[in-house]
Amino acid sequence: MSQSIENWAQRVCAGDVRALSRAITAIENHEPDSEELLRLLFPRTGKAYLTGVTGAPGTGKSTLVDRLSAHYRGKQEQVGVIAVDPTSPYSGGAILGDRIRMQGHAGDSGMFIRSMATRGFLGGLARATAEVALLLDAAGKQQVLIETVGVGQDEIDIVRLADCVVVMLVPGMGDDIQNMKAGLMEIGDIFVLNKSDREGADRLEQQLNAMLSLVMPREGWHPPVVRTVASENKGIDALAETIARFRKHFEASGERKRKHVEHWKLRLIELLESRLLQRALGGPGGEARLTQLAEEVAERKKDPFSAVSDILARSGLGGTA
Amino acid sequence: MSQSIENWAQRVCAGDVRALSRAITAIENHEPDSEELLRLLFPRTGKAYLTGVTGAPGTGKSTLVDRLSAHYRGKQEQVGVIAVDPTSPYSGGAILGDRIRMQGHAGDSGMFIRSMATRGFLGGLARATAEVALLLDAAGKQQVLIETVGVGQDEIDIVRLADCVVVMLVPGMGDDIQNMKAGLMEIGDIFVLNKSDREGADRLEQQLNAMLSLVMPREGWHPPVVRTVASENKGIDALAETIARFRKHFEASGERKRKHVEHWKLRLIELLESRLLQRALGGPGGEARLTQLAEEVAERKKDPFSAVSDILARSGLGGTA
Repeated sequence: MSQSIENWAQRVCAGDVRALSRAITAIENHEPDSEELLRLLFPRTGKAYLTGVTGAPGTGKSTLVDRLSAHYRGKQEQVGVIAVDPTSPYSGGAILGDRIRMQGHAGDSGMFIRSMATRGFLGGLARATAEVALLLDAAGKQQVLIETVGVGQDEIDIVRLADCVVVMLVPGMGDDIQNMKAGLMEIGDIFVLNKSDREGADRLEQQLNAMLSLVMPREGWHPPVVRTVASENKGIDALAETIARFRKHFEASGERKRKHVEHWKLRLIELLESRLLQRALGGPGGEARLTQLAEEVAERKKDPFSAVSDILARSGLGGTA
Repeated sequence: MSQSIENWAQRVCAGDVRALSRAITAIENHEPDSEELLRLLFPRTGKAYLTGVTGAPGTGKSTLVDRLSAHYRGKQEQVGVIAVDPTSPYSGGAILGDRIRMQGHAGDSGMFIRSMATRGFLGGLARATAEVALLLDAAGKQQVLIETVGVGQDEIDIVRLADCVVVMLVPGMGDDIQNMKAGLMEIGDIFVLNKSDREGADRLEQQLNAMLSLVMPREGWHPPVVRTVASENKGIDALAETIARFRKHFEASGERKRKHVEHWKLRLIELLESRLLQRALGGPGGEARLTQLAEEVAERKKDPFSAVSDILARSGLGGTA
C-alpha cells in the first residue's frame, strides 16, 4: 500500500490531473491515506505563491481569479485555483461550476481548478484548503489562487493561509465603508476596487484610502488600492504587478519568515483540532453517539463535562472523569 | 478544596455578584476549578431563556439590549447580559464599558452585565459564552441576553447557542439587502429594524419581508420583522411580546427539544475541542513549543503531520507517528 502511495505521490508531482483530483477527495473525506500522501509530498512544497482573494458575494471574485489565472498562464506559470464556499453544505453544484469554469481553459494542462465546500459535522474547511494548497504546490503550480466569499471567521481563517491577501470591493455595496467587516480591513494586503467603471467608484476609493491611512503599515507596506473591471480584463496586469511587488517587498524584509511561522502555528492548531476530533468522533457511529449524549444532556440526565469525558474515554483519548 | 467549590457554587446560586464574576474569570482562563463548579451547577440550570442579539456594528445592539433588560426588570424578571466582541483581543476596554453600562442599573441586584472578548491563542469564545450563560442560568437569571457583533462564523456559533435569535438591521447600511450575510438570514428567528424613524426604513422592511417570504418557515414559524427606535424606547414592548410568542410557539411544537439536542451537539463538540487543545497545548510553555515546531515546519525540517504527532505524544494524547 505504501508502495502505491509513493506512486500516487509521483503522479501528483508530475501534475497528473486524476491523481490530484483523487488526492483532494481523500483530503476532504479524511482518508488516512491522504496524510501519508501529504507527508511524502511535503518536502517538495514551499515553492508556490499563495494569493487569497476574498470579498462579499457579488464583487466579482471568480471573474477576477479567472483573468488573473489567464495572466499567469500567459507568462508560462502553472496555476492552481481553489474556490472555497463555506456557506455551501455540499459541493455537487460547485463541481458543476468547476466544469463550466474549466471550459475557458480547455486542454490547458497548466491550469487546475477545484471547488471545495463544507462537509460533514466536524468542519475543518480551513485545514482541508491548506492541504489542497500543499498538494497543488507539490504538483508544480507556481501560482495558487484561493478564492473565498468573505462572510465570516471561516473565510478569514482560509485567506490567512495565503502569502498575499486581496480584498475585493465594488461601488454601491454599502453606503458606508465602515460597514465593511473589520476583520477584512485588517487582513488585506491589497485592495481591489472592481467594477470601477460604476458610479460611486471615486467616492469609495477616497473612503478606502482614508481608512487605510489609519491602518498601521506592516513592515513598511501600505496596502494599495487597485482599480479593475475584471469582466473587461482591465487592471489585471496592474494587479499582478502589485502582487509581485508585495511578494518582493516581503521577501526582502524579514517579515516573510515571521509570517510563515505565524501561518504554520495556525495550521498546526487546525490540524491538531481536526485530528483529535476525528479520533474522538470520526469513526462509524460517531455522530449517533454524539446525538445520544446531547439528548441526555438536554434532559439534564448527564452534565456536559461528563458527556465529553465519556467520548474521550471511549475513543481512547483518556478521560479524567 | 472541593468543599470551597461547593461553597462557591452556593454563592453563585444565590446570585452573589463577586462569586459570579470570579467564576466568569475562571471560565475565561480555563481554570480547572471552573469545570468542577459548572458540573455542580449544571443540575440547577435549564430555566433561563437565552436570547441572542446580533447585527452589524452600528445597528444599536447595546442600546436595544439595555432597553430590553429594563423591560424584563420592570416585570420582576432577573436579567443577565453577556456582551461578546470576538474582534476585540482583550477585554480591558470592554470591562470599562461594563461599568458605564451598569451605571444605568446601579444598585439593581437583579441585573448582571459582563463583556467577553477573545483571549489567548486557543480561542474557544463560543464555549466560554455558553458556559457563562449556564452560570447566569444557575444564578437565577430568567432572561439571559447574549449580544454579539454579527461579523462572522464565531458570532454565528455564539448566537446559535441561544433559544431565540434576534437579528438587527438599520436603514442605510447597505443599498441592497442581498449583501446581508447569508448566514444571518438563516439563523434569525426575529428581525429587528432599528432606527426605523430613518429614511429608507419602509424600503428595507419591504425588501426584508420579500426575502423572508422565500425562507422556509421552521415548524410553522415565519420570522417576523419588528420596528424599533431603541434610543427612544419605541417598539421594545412589541419586541418582548414577539420573543414571548416565539418561545410559546416552540414550546408547544416538538421543535424545542430538537433544537436543544442540536444545541448540545454543537456545545459538546466545542467543549471537546477546547478540552483537547487545552490538554495538548495549554500548559506552561505550550505556545513556545508550538512556535518552535512551526519554525521547523516553515523551514521544511519537519512535516506538519510529524509536528502534530510530537505535540500529541508529548501531551500524553498518544501519537501514531
